[in-house]
Amino acid sequence: MRRTSLNEADCPIARALDAVGDWWSLLIVRDAMFGLRRFGEFQKSLGMAKNILTARLRGLVAAGILDAVPNGAHNDYVLTRKGRDLFTVLVALRQWGETHQFPEGACPVELLDRENRQPVGALELRAADGRRLSADDTMIRLRN
Amino acid sequence: MRRTSLNEADCPIARALDAVGDWWSLLIVRDAMFGLRRFGEFQKSLGMAKNILTARLRGLVAAGILDAVPNGAHNDYVLTRKGRDLFTVLVALRQWGETHQFPEGACPVELLDRENRQPVGALELRAADGRRLSADDTMIRLRN
Repeated sequence: MRRTSLNEADCPIARALDAVGDWWSLLIVRDAMFGLRRFGEFQKSLGMAKNILTARLRGLVAAGILDAVPNGAHNDYVLTRKGRDLFTVLVALRQWGETHQFPEGACPVELLDRENRQPVGALELRAADGRRLSADDTMIRLRN
Repeated sequence: MRRTSLNEADCPIARALDAVGDWWSLLIVRDAMFGLRRFGEFQKSLGMAKNILTARLRGLVAAGILDAVPNGAHNDYVLTRKGRDLFTVLVALRQWGETHQFPEGACPVELLDRENRQPVGALELRAADGRRLSADDTMIRLRN
């Protein structure tokens, strides 16, 4: 990437991190993608203090990432389209973590294609004509 | 994604977030990809308190994401291979932020292919045979 002068508020990475830039929020989104919906399910999965979980769920609802859907006496927390679109962010973190946060071949879980139980491909950034792009092949530009 | 029981320490997403799961760390990595190297450059770009920047740089060096390279009286901070590989994570955050954290078409910066100044493609997860995969098309499995 090549730098262009910009305000932090103009940077989509900074804005994304405003919404999901803490450990717990992305793990809640991960668990919601696994199908968890109830406060108690998240609490059990993540082992978080209840007051912190309450605050994070509220933040994710305020950010439009989760919907709070009344279900009897409680709410279910369900990913919105915006929340489901974080799948790519989670896969990028997963693939980086597999490669760099475990010894080679030692990551105990793998992400598979459900249809044939084969490993998924690596996320790749491509040009319009299909060339694979690294950071050095890209630049950012201010729109007019 | 389908859930499989696992310890948090076994999850590559959780491990990735251990290393980069805070707002500042990923913005430092973003700026390093833009070519920033000096403490003062990061400090000016990010407007962070010096003690927080010091702690975050130290953490990124400890995680193997930045190398501290002596340069005269100071250190340069340079991305390692592990750090450069965060490019995909940053692009995923950027593309999500562009789509969901700005009104449509209002994101003031765009990521371009340097060769022809055309917008890059969207990151997509693909199966081995090239099918595009959404979260519902995938599952995780514990390796034996």
